[in-house]
Amino acid sequence: MKTPSQLARPHVPALHAYVPGLQPTETGWIKLNTNECPYPPSPLVGIAVREALGEDSASLRLYPHPTSEPLRRQIATLHDLAYDQVIIGNGSDDILNLLVRVFGGEGAATGFTWPSYSLYPVLVGIQDGATEVVEFDCDMKLPVEKITASPAAAFFLTSPNAPTGVGFPPAEIERVLQGFGGVLVVDEAYAPFAEDDAIPLLARYPNLVVVRTLSKAHALAGIRVGYALASAETIGLLDRVRDSYNVNHLSQVAAAAALGDAAYYKGIITKIKTTRDTWLERFRQRGWFVHDSASNFLFLEPRDARGEAGPGVAAGLFEFFKTRRILVRAFPKHALTASFLRISVGTDDEMLAVDQAIEAWLNPAP
Amino acid sequence: MKTPSQLARPHVPALHAYVPGLQPTETGWIKLNTNECPYPPSPLVGIAVREALGEDSASLRLYPHPTSEPLRRQIATLHDLAYDQVIIGNGSDDILNLLVRVFGGEGAATGFTWPSYSLYPVLVGIQDGATEVVEFDCDMKLPVEKITASPAAAFFLTSPNAPTGVGFPPAEIERVLQGFGGVLVVDEAYAPFAEDDAIPLLARYPNLVVVRTLSKAHALAGIRVGYALASAETIGLLDRVRDSYNVNHLSQVAAAAALGDAAYYKGIITKIKTTRDTWLERFRQRGWFVHDSASNFLFLEPRDARGEAGPGVAAGLFEFFKTRRILVRAFPKHALTASFLRISVGTDDEMLAVDQAIEAWLNPAP
Repeated sequence: MKTPSQLARPHVPALHAYVPGLQPTETGWIKLNTNECPYPPSPLVGIAVREALGEDSASLRLYPHPTSEPLRRQIATLHDLAYDQVIIGNGSDDILNLLVRVFGGEGAATGFTWPSYSLYPVLVGIQDGATEVVEFDCDMKLPVEKITASPAAAFFLTSPNAPTGVGFPPAEIERVLQGFGGVLVVDEAYAPFAEDDAIPLLARYPNLVVVRTLSKAHALAGIRVGYALASAETIGLLDRVRDSYNVNHLSQVAAAAALGDAAYYKGIITKIKTTRDTWLERFRQRGWFVHDSASNFLFLEPRDARGEAGPGVAAGLFEFFKTRRILVRAFPKHALTASFLRISVGTDDEMLAVDQAIEAWLNPAP
Repeated sequence: MKTPSQLARPHVPALHAYVPGLQPTETGWIKLNTNECPYPPSPLVGIAVREALGEDSASLRLYPHPTSEPLRRQIATLHDLAYDQVIIGNGSDDILNLLVRVFGGEGAATGFTWPSYSLYPVLVGIQDGATEVVEFDCDMKLPVEKITASPAAAFFLTSPNAPTGVGFPPAEIERVLQGFGGVLVVDEAYAPFAEDDAIPLLARYPNLVVVRTLSKAHALAGIRVGYALASAETIGLLDRVRDSYNVNHLSQVAAAAALGDAAYYKGIITKIKTTRDTWLERFRQRGWFVHDSASNFLFLEPRDARGEAGPGVAAGLFEFFKTRRILVRAFPKHALTASFLRISVGTDDEMLAVDQAIEAWLNPAP
């Protein structure tokens, strides 16, 4: 009798799962490794969830709204789009997965820039599809011509980019849309921290998909809600492969409450951008190279006490941070990222702790 | 330039989405169409969710535990299995989807009995796989020989069965396991209402997967939590295609609280079984055929005032129920189910309302 591994599709046993950033279970860590928001979500979220629970949580006994219809309507209004131009996901990762299942697989390559969000190749691998990788140059600018030349059926682009934080101008994205023959997915997880976004382009480009999440700017990584905006035709395709109850009831309620409190989020986003810009300057004043950031994180190349940079230096600081119970993210597997660390923008106190740790790393006690 | 539909994999535009049971948005319906629990979940659920929210919902800003580790440990202990024999899903539908992605697709057929849970063919269709359908005979008994003869790489079996409610004896399931060459998935959504289950067979059959949900007996359809129990080898395969943050934080907390309150659930499950058995007898006393039920629903063949049964009679009662704001489920597309209605076991009051509606249908006011 065959074993489960022998019965599995041949590509599955060879897959490597996506490795998410560490989520420590103990308290006491300064957690700047997964670009979560350092501030709590809108107070309206807790109020709405408690109200949805009611006295006896009886609302939980029923299935959630299968298409997340009220939330979908709210998001359509928010972005001035039609209802059928919106789909809600169990996190934006769910949406990315649906996109790969619709447009990827045998006989159709899926493209993405690299280095970028490391989930893209994982999702393509699960679908046993071919990848069309467009490598960034050192300047990490948008490689427009390489993308428009790509034969991929769908191409994933993170903007603002991860892990660099660099924002791509809408005019550049429009140039991609004008030349590329497939569906362009602009993953805008960090767009609330940027000055502009690709949503206005939806009116003119039916092959554009914009993906958003509530995990970053909305301080709701724990509820798993993301969404896509696209032409009604594309949304209809995604809906065909979507799990019919993909978003649970309390998450639908929490997301709706958060998106209804624009004033609160304007406040914390402004604060995060101010903190980001302040510390970006300070790191540069150390003589460190730091990418411009249109996101809620900084991608920087640390230099040690001798002024040296490189993969070993970045790894050394990463480990030193850990001894101070500070978690950041390292990307040692690619030449363009191995000398860098990605530090999520935290509270003022957290950023000060980072700075003090760097001082201690540079000037060890004798 | 190609349209999104032209860029999609060729099978996707032709897919038909799974049609879930109606979830009315207005109140006032007696909702007996999707086998939800008529009672609220354990009071510990609301307490745990409120505690997890805390004063400012700050816990929601962080990503949830990627592998649902604490919940997974708890479920392993509950079923006396190892930690690596458990995987948690965003509802059991998520688990079923993972199973189809691991074992189905081009070149590998996925099997299931029919009529059964109509999501199975939908999931196989999304994966563009072939199906191996084993039709039930009129007696709706487990077609052991037909399944063992199936060349499917994975075979899905609902036990207790849906939509009939009939439970399959573990000895029969063991006969399937002894003869079938693929992975056998026993979907035990309704097993808490049955007298026995397939879990003890896991110790001897590495190709067995048992799927459970908290949506039915645990009154938590709204939170989307299900799980699979299997050999560590099979769980490892499923984990490779699982979304890394598939279960949100509050749902992990709610599920753990519910599974920690066995006494509460013993009480409501006993009550539901008593109600089920009482009404099963009463429907039979009307002269209606009703399948034995090891679940939380009744699958019955209504007879009209003239003693006639058939698809038209079932459809007529279905529509009459709707005029009384009672929702049940009809399955008009298959000869073995078209004359039947499926009625979820509700509260005593709800069952009385069903009975009164039937009386009014049989004896219309002159």
